[in-house]
Amino acid sequence: MNRVKNFEGLSTHLALSGIRKRVAVVCAADEHTQQAVDQALDKGLIEVWFVGNTDEVRHRPGLMRHKDSVHYVEATTDEEAARKAVTMAREGNVDVVMKGLLGTDVMLHAVLDKERGILPKGNVLTHISACQIPSLRRLLFFSDAAVIPYPNRHQLSAETHYLADLCRAIGIEEPRISLIHCTEKTNERLFPHTADYRYIVEQAAAGHYGRCRVDGPLDVRTSCDAESLAIKKIKSPLEGKADALVFPDIEAANAFYKTVTLFTHATTACILQGAAVPVVLPSRGDSTSSKYYSLMMACASAK
Amino acid sequence: MNRVKNFEGLSTHLALSGIRKRVAVVCAADEHTQQAVDQALDKGLIEVWFVGNTDEVRHRPGLMRHKDSVHYVEATTDEEAARKAVTMAREGNVDVVMKGLLGTDVMLHAVLDKERGILPKGNVLTHISACQIPSLRRLLFFSDAAVIPYPNRHQLSAETHYLADLCRAIGIEEPRISLIHCTEKTNERLFPHTADYRYIVEQAAAGHYGRCRVDGPLDVRTSCDAESLAIKKIKSPLEGKADALVFPDIEAANAFYKTVTLFTHATTACILQGAAVPVVLPSRGDSTSSKYYSLMMACASAK
Repeated sequence: MNRVKNFEGLSTHLALSGIRKRVAVVCAADEHTQQAVDQALDKGLIEVWFVGNTDEVRHRPGLMRHKDSVHYVEATTDEEAARKAVTMAREGNVDVVMKGLLGTDVMLHAVLDKERGILPKGNVLTHISACQIPSLRRLLFFSDAAVIPYPNRHQLSAETHYLADLCRAIGIEEPRISLIHCTEKTNERLFPHTADYRYIVEQAAAGHYGRCRVDGPLDVRTSCDAESLAIKKIKSPLEGKADALVFPDIEAANAFYKTVTLFTHATTACILQGAAVPVVLPSRGDSTSSKYYSLMMACASAK
Repeated sequence: MNRVKNFEGLSTHLALSGIRKRVAVVCAADEHTQQAVDQALDKGLIEVWFVGNTDEVRHRPGLMRHKDSVHYVEATTDEEAARKAVTMAREGNVDVVMKGLLGTDVMLHAVLDKERGILPKGNVLTHISACQIPSLRRLLFFSDAAVIPYPNRHQLSAETHYLADLCRAIGIEEPRISLIHCTEKTNERLFPHTADYRYIVEQAAAGHYGRCRVDGPLDVRTSCDAESLAIKKIKSPLEGKADALVFPDIEAANAFYKTVTLFTHATTACILQGAAVPVVLPSRGDSTSSKYYSLMMACASAK
């Protein structure tokens, strides 16, 4: 399998796999969501169930070309649409759930519902982003910029697991995962997460996350840049070529996310991981391409 | 006074002021520190006291041109040199202290010494950085990427104060200071610093930080980009044109710092603020220009 190096490569990767993923799209009333789904249909990558008030979607001329790949499930309220899509996922009838134009809280409420939701007991729900930074020749994945404020050891370990799985799913045979901190020093008293990092590095060495290289604490520079590593005279199995970054808290991850998008014009995608199926949960303001890449990322990570 | 927009402007600003700042340079044994000091001398911006084993410095041909502006204070150990420089600052004989080739801990130990140091009781010692990002038409100041791990309300307030003073010192008449968080929502329970932010915004409105605009919580995008603010339909007195960012913790500030330097090739400078005089405390790996700009920033902020 070829290693995916950018978002275009992600599409190609899915096309080459030959497997069409089944996607439930909830309340696809906005143009960006519809265009993202159109693109995936045009490339033959998905089979789609539009869930909600489907009148708004049915008249789209583009969809006629894909009649056999498009289905409609009526729902009169946002709540009902979210619940129906989640039920389809729980019963194994779709591989991915994608949110359209409805409140994030409504969608999450259906996902997290204790009886009818799709978060298996003990699983950690976390937010994984990918960014394509113009000066970097690979996709960079990271967590968690949006869901878990201050992840504990169990949650940091789950994030590492998801990132390793996702990277391998797109052809990175031995993903390099960096545990981010402001320095390279472990300091249990001031920074308890650095002790968690040591535990995760040990778990990785014991094979807990499958084939991968995990190291940290490292900062963003020593994680992603071999020269910065050399200047600080640090040896790291990642060699300054991290594929994925685990941030210690939502503030650091979010600062990274907003900084790369604003100042490097990075393209990004993101999904929720940890539920029975990946959930695409874009912001209203996200561009069509960001929604499309997020859908691709979800399809790639779906079982 | 003209507003300083980039690091070159900072030099010009100091030259126009016509006041030469007095600088104690501790253990100037490394080439980058010496070159940074040479540049400032060549432009007539400083009068310098080399403190330490001064044999290494005296033979430099460049210094002969500035005989009247260069002085030497002998010290046989790093500890003695640090102590002597700090004493000069305490007694009002220098306006800035700059660290050369000695351990950061040795320098900080002298600064923080309870009896002979220069941190007034109750003052907060904090790390202020400035970055010049190629796509941004102004300098962006921020704290704290290196010293205070998780600032409390008092420390966040002090950071706001220092940033406001520093910006005004370089001609930004009404500095715009943003209090950074991952969203624009105040959430006292999950994120206690957002309640501190509300307090700081109130303090600012009451004139506590002098003339300035303070707003938050805002994220990095809504702080620095008017379009991002408009998309989220947020009204902010900063109008997406922040001059300075206060980060909620060292992880977020450090992630920002490392990300802009690695992926946008930003130039940076930094100083310690809060002691009786600004302290330039560069890393060994810093370039000559970074050390020079840090020295300029310290001179601009010195009383």
